[in-house]
Order: sequence, then C-alpha cells, then structure tokens
Amino acid sequence: MKIELARVAPADIEARSMEIIRSELKTPLDPENEAVILRAIHTTADFDYAETLTFSPGAVRKGVEALLHGASVVTDTTMALSGINKRVLHKLGGEAYNFIADPEVAQAAKDRGVTRATVSMEHAAALGKHLIYAIGNAPTALVRLYELWREGQLPEPALIIGVPVGFVNVVEAKELICTMDCPYIVARGRKGGSNLAAAIVNALLYTASKNERE
Amino acid sequence: MKIELARVAPADIEARSMEIIRSELKTPLDPENEAVILRAIHTTADFDYAETLTFSPGAVRKGVEALLHGASVVTDTTMALSGINKRVLHKLGGEAYNFIADPEVAQAAKDRGVTRATVSMEHAAALGKHLIYAIGNAPTALVRLYELWREGQLPEPALIIGVPVGFVNVVEAKELICTMDCPYIVARGRKGGSNLAAAIVNALLYTASKNERE
Repeated sequence: MKIELARVAPADIEARSMEIIRSELKTPLDPENEAVILRAIHTTADFDYAETLTFSPGAVRKGVEALLHGASVVTDTTMALSGINKRVLHKLGGEAYNFIADPEVAQAAKDRGVTRATVSMEHAAALGKHLIYAIGNAPTALVRLYELWREGQLPEPALIIGVPVGFVNVVEAKELICTMDCPYIVARGRKGGSNLAAAIVNALLYTASKNERE
Repeated sequence: MKIELARVAPADIEARSMEIIRSELKTPLDPENEAVILRAIHTTADFDYAETLTFSPGAVRKGVEALLHGASVVTDTTMALSGINKRVLHKLGGEAYNFIADPEVAQAAKDRGVTRATVSMEHAAALGKHLIYAIGNAPTALVRLYELWREGQLPEPALIIGVPVGFVNVVEAKELICTMDCPYIVARGRKGGSNLAAAIVNALLYTASKNERE
C-alpha cells in the first residue's frame, strides 16, 4: 500500500482541519456555539460533541466577555492547565490556576477522605468572583462546585466548563451542573477530558482575542 | 429529575471504573495488551480504542522492559508531558523530555517552513538509543520519526506510541509507523490525543512498577 501525505503548510493545517470538520457535520451548528464545538471536534476527532455539548443561554458570549474583562481560569488538572494558551490569557489580563499539586490540598483531602479535586475547588472559590472553572477530569470537582453554589459559597462564577470523562458519577455530576442558574458549558454523557477542557477555554480565548482586535 | 451520586471512596473510583469497562467490552482483550487498552478507555470513555489500538509484536512487553531499564520518554506536547506520572518514571530511572517550547526549535521550524514538532523529534533523536516516543498531537512528529528511521538517524527506539488526533495526515502518519520494524503502539484512524499518549505511557509505567515489586 502506498501511503500518500497531503502537502499542507504548517500554518494551514488548522484551517484545513476545520474545513473538513464543517464538511462532515450532519447538521448546521448554532453560530453562537460554533467556535467551541468546532474546536472540541478538532481536539478529539469525535463528532459526538456536536450533539453532547450543552450550553446555558449565552454561555459562550458570557465566557468571552469575562475573558475580555481579564477573568482568570481554574482547572482541575495540570494537564488542562498545560493545554490552555497562557500567552493569550495573560494578554487579556487573566491568570490560570490549579491547586491539585498543593501539599495543603493533598493533606486536607487525605484527612477528610475526599478527592484532591474536591478540596482544590474550595481553594479556587476562595479566589473570588468571575472565575472560569475548567473541569476536564474530576466529577468530584463539579459536585463540590454544585454544593458550594447551593451553600452560597461560590461567588458568581463567570462560567463552569463541565467536561470530565469517566464512568463513576461523571454523567450525574454534569447533570447537577445543568441544574445551576449560572453560565455553563457541559459535555453530557461519559466523554470529555482535560484536553477538551483546555480546548474549550482556548476557543473562548481566540474569540475574545479576535473581538478585541476588531 | 433526582440525580443520585454513587457512594464510592476516592481510592476505589479507578477500580470501579475498570470493572465497568470490563463489563461493557464486547470481546475479551488480549491479556498482553489489556492494561494499555483498559487505561486508554478509562482516559477517554471511548470504546473504539479496543478496536483501533494496534500493537507490534511484543510492544507492551518491550516498552515495560525499557522502562524497567530506565528508559526516558519524549513527548510532542507539554500536555502529554504534564499527564505522564513523573514520580513513577523517575523512580524507575527515566526522564521525560519535550522540546516544543525550546526557542531554538521554534526558530529552526520557522526558518525551514516545518512544524516545531518536526524539529523537536530531531532534538529527541539526538538524545540517543532506547527512548520511548509518546506522540499524541502532531502527525508531523510521526512523519519525521519515520524519515529519520529510514535515513538511519533514529537510533533504536524502545517504543513509538503513535496516537495523534486530527484530520490532516493523521491517519497516514500512523500507517507509516505501522510499516516500521520497531516496537509501536498506534491508534489507527483519526482519534487519539495528548491525554491518550500520556495514559499509554502511564499504563506501561504502572505495569513496570508492579513487575518490579513482584
């Protein structure tokens, strides 16, 4: 078998990929959510996200506006942190945080018999208002965000990106987020991941960056 | 709708997830590759990997043996680097490398009109023999590894993990790796990712670590 490589310049690979994705989508995308859905599929090659990504009203616009106002992003894994385009985030005035490797978080999690992700969300909430929570791994992080919100301890989140992956309490934790009266983007079902969480943040960052230039 | 969370202790979540995966698999897995396939599905909630993951003869055993001899791992993204369990890798005597953010790599890529991933593989190959290449993003990294190998410039790789995701030359680049007479684990098709590359390295690390203790 002869394996033929397409000749595409490095700078054109992303645009070509997006063309292919658009051409294979079975139904047109809501223009408001298009940038996020396209980037989710681009990152995963999984067209399921065209169906499973669920947006609260105006979630994308609200996320983009928050970033334009310098909102910071908190992740549940170092991998999601690593995938976020910090250059663009810093340019807009935001920071990226992750508390999972904090020794205090590890000790508190051990003492209380909860996950480090649970404790790290409490640290995040203490940072204050208008944060973007990007959760790609731990359903327990989403459950704790939901509980904090119910207890009045989650001050005005700008956006919750709820896209953990897995088999235990993942579907349920995402459904809890969908009951919240705050902006969210959730990948319903079992699928998701740290790569997806980062990709969604980046889609919002690139839209914000483009809006700023225009 | 009442959303009910299962009560599972943090330490038991992974074992419970693996039970669920095993119970839903349609065909039994080859015991030799089972640890890698289970962890791939655990990381992605995508059962396609039971079909698409392709192993050269003895690839898992060879990867595990290399890690037990202190092999180092090179990734194509900081995200894959971030997802690898460095604690276990270091304990076995290995290091994790990534050259994508090296300013020299960026400059050379620009000058030559190639991707940074291409140049970063040349830096990696210069490290010497018995490396594990964990490629979850850039098909151009796989293409360059293939070319270097054909030119006799890729000194005895311990294992190539070829699992990039995407739409342009991804399928083809993986097929090139499957023609190589060296140990490989490839996710055929478009799907893959940095998270998957890290998960496969971790599956090998945990197997190596277990073998060492026994």
